[in-house]
Amino acid sequence: MTKAKDSLRASDEQTHAHHGYMRDKDRYLARLKRIEGQARGIHRMVAEERYCIDILTQVSAITRALESVALGLLDDHLRHCVLDATHAGGAGAEQKLEEASKAISRLVRS
Amino acid sequence: MTKAKDSLRASDEQTHAHHGYMRDKDRYLARLKRIEGQARGIHRMVAEERYCIDILTQVSAITRALESVALGLLDDHLRHCVLDATHAGGAGAEQKLEEASKAISRLVRS
Amino acid sequence: MTKAKDSLRASDEQTHAHHGYMRDKDRYLARLKRIEGQARGIHRMVAEERYCIDILTQVSAITRALESVALGLLDDHLRHCVLDATHAGGAGAEQKLEEASKAISRLVRS
Amino acid sequence: MTKAKDSLRASDEQTHAHHGYMRDKDRYLARLKRIEGQARGIHRMVAEERYCIDILTQVSAITRALESVALGLLDDHLRHCVLDATHAGGAGAEQKLEEASKAISRLVRS
Repeated sequence: MTKAKDSLRASDEQTHAHHGYMRDKDRYLARLKRIEGQARGIHRMVAEERYCIDILTQVSAITRALESVALGLLDDHLRHCVLDATHAGGAGAEQKLEEASKAISRLVRS
Repeated sequence: MTKAKDSLRASDEQTHAHHGYMRDKDRYLARLKRIEGQARGIHRMVAEERYCIDILTQVSAITRALESVALGLLDDHLRHCVLDATHAGGAGAEQKLEEASKAISRLVRS
Repeated sequence: MTKAKDSLRASDEQTHAHHGYMRDKDRYLARLKRIEGQARGIHRMVAEERYCIDILTQVSAITRALESVALGLLDDHLRHCVLDATHAGGAGAEQKLEEASKAISRLVRS
Repeated sequence: MTKAKDSLRASDEQTHAHHGYMRDKDRYLARLKRIEGQARGIHRMVAEERYCIDILTQVSAITRALESVALGLLDDHLRHCVLDATHAGGAGAEQKLEEASKAISRLVRS
């Protein structure tokens, strides 16, 4: 729409520079690999008919790990995408803030 | 320790009859398979450098799915393991309640 | 069953003695008085236009205090009301468990 | 300390302009008054020895009301204090983002 937004879009498609988390991409990938393994582990516990409380302990562990990934991504997002949009100004900044607030609400309520 | 507890243990090892969730085992396995797939999907989104907010939306979705599995397991646990131990009486009942309360705290706080 | 329990039942109808939390009533009242004071404190912070982050810190503190009261009440409830209903048997036990599971879901999701 | 920060401080003391929530101050005060009343109501329920599950329902309601106030304050904070600091630039912006991320973590984890 605005010029600022057009140029944001453009740089966006070329470099993904606005994805704050990209600097830590490998670390996020490793953490998510571990979370996938934890999910597989819980599946196995149920298949093996393990004790309910032990399964619940693992569910709490994976939930905390996911929460921690989400908080990291959100922090990176605020520091990069949101600030970049703010500097670019215009409707893009407002939209990014709206999006971020909704994502925070979903995290707090889930 | 007590006789009641010994017999509980014994039946435990043979039948897992106290694992309330076993009646719905296939349904739990299907839900956990789906959660594992969701975790793999989030890993792929980061690998493909997808937009942070979209990744956060998926993290909230998997968290809710895990929460729902946990609440189901806990309900089954209270209805079966805890009640069975209560009927058997003795120290086993106290221990089961203690365990269940701790699991609830972990869920509420995670 | 036992004499102690019979008298508990009887007094129950008169005084609500079956409310597990009643043994700690004074402690719960003191904690809730403190929570009420915390709520008043947050109101005052907004009236005095204090810094948003400091207000948010107080909101997190009161939320944790409420959560802790809720977990205490729930534990007492499981140990008393639910177990008593279980011993009494019948539809009452089922209803108490249903109620307790719903209360746990509300806590986990709030 | 830096120039950017000094000027931020100065405007701060004069206008409170960075307190985003101030535009909705009356609405926040009314909501917090209601929350204080809810806390008093829970205290009264325990004093009157009301049924545990009904008390827990009220605790969940007040927790949700607090959460909603917190999400509102945080959204206002991001839109005003954080963006203002970003435009002012310098170490202030970094500090505001750090603070905001910590507040979000506390909310998600409480």
